[in-house]
Amino acid sequence: MKYSNKFSLWVAYVVVIMCLISCSTEKPLAKVPESVALKMNAQEAAWNDGDIKAFMEIAYWNSESLLFVGSKGPTFGFQGTLENYIKNYPSQTEMGQLQFELIHWQQLGTKYGLLVGSWSLHRDSQIDDLSGHFSLIWERKSDLGWVIIADHSS
Amino acid sequence: MKYSNKFSLWVAYVVVIMCLISCSTEKPLAKVPESVALKMNAQEAAWNDGDIKAFMEIAYWNSESLLFVGSKGPTFGFQGTLENYIKNYPSQTEMGQLQFELIHWQQLGTKYGLLVGSWSLHRDSQIDDLSGHFSLIWERKSDLGWVIIADHSS
Repeated sequence: MKYSNKFSLWVAYVVVIMCLISCSTEKPLAKVPESVALKMNAQEAAWNDGDIKAFMEIAYWNSESLLFVGSKGPTFGFQGTLENYIKNYPSQTEMGQLQFELIHWQQLGTKYGLLVGSWSLHRDSQIDDLSGHFSLIWERKSDLGWVIIADHSS
Repeated sequence: MKYSNKFSLWVAYVVVIMCLISCSTEKPLAKVPESVALKMNAQEAAWNDGDIKAFMEIAYWNSESLLFVGSKGPTFGFQGTLENYIKNYPSQTEMGQLQFELIHWQQLGTKYGLLVGSWSLHRDSQIDDLSGHFSLIWERKSDLGWVIIADHSS
């Protein structure tokens, strides 16, 4: 193969790779704070152990101002959100096995960030699997580190 | 009526009013920037005129980084979001009459804010009404004022 042909192939290869990267409709996950990713992992583990309270305490801000927007609209407060979770997932059968996928992190100034991702619950064959997406607003608090202050899940 | 009875009634009245206020599960809408509220009103009007492009241009950031999370997951970019709207609402029959209700504004630092509310589409009797909730992240840009940079609607 001539040198010019090899060079042409190399150029074509680079163009294809660059196109594959730039044409992707899904943005890469940039700079998600390590403690946020760790808390999401720990939340999965707590849920899959059947411990909803730990699942919430790991990442959600324990405050009356916590905001959760679900299929029935907004709920204010950690306690109300916890009660909704317990009502909707009364046992490990309903809870199933939770898996998060982190899709997009966006810093909002120095103290806030938005994490978008997907969630799925794999459950026994007698009960349907569930899945959806979440938008979590995190705040970096001086005493608590990053905590979720608002969650819209659908 | 004795003075003590009148006083008791007055105390009971105050207690009932305070309870009604404090027991409300819905927080009052605090300090939503006027330009945000005006843009939401203008969006309703544009939608109800059948103009999806104007609906978007009024409030959404015209950028490839605009993020929309809907029932099918995230879409990045103003153009992709516009195309999804046009696909899902091909005519004024499907668009119906839009009504927003603003429920909660939360400032996130100086440049960002979260607006949570409900949306409803009233449509002809041959086609179902639709309704749901939105969480909008607004950014105050020096050249554009407040614009929506991320929308999770369900």
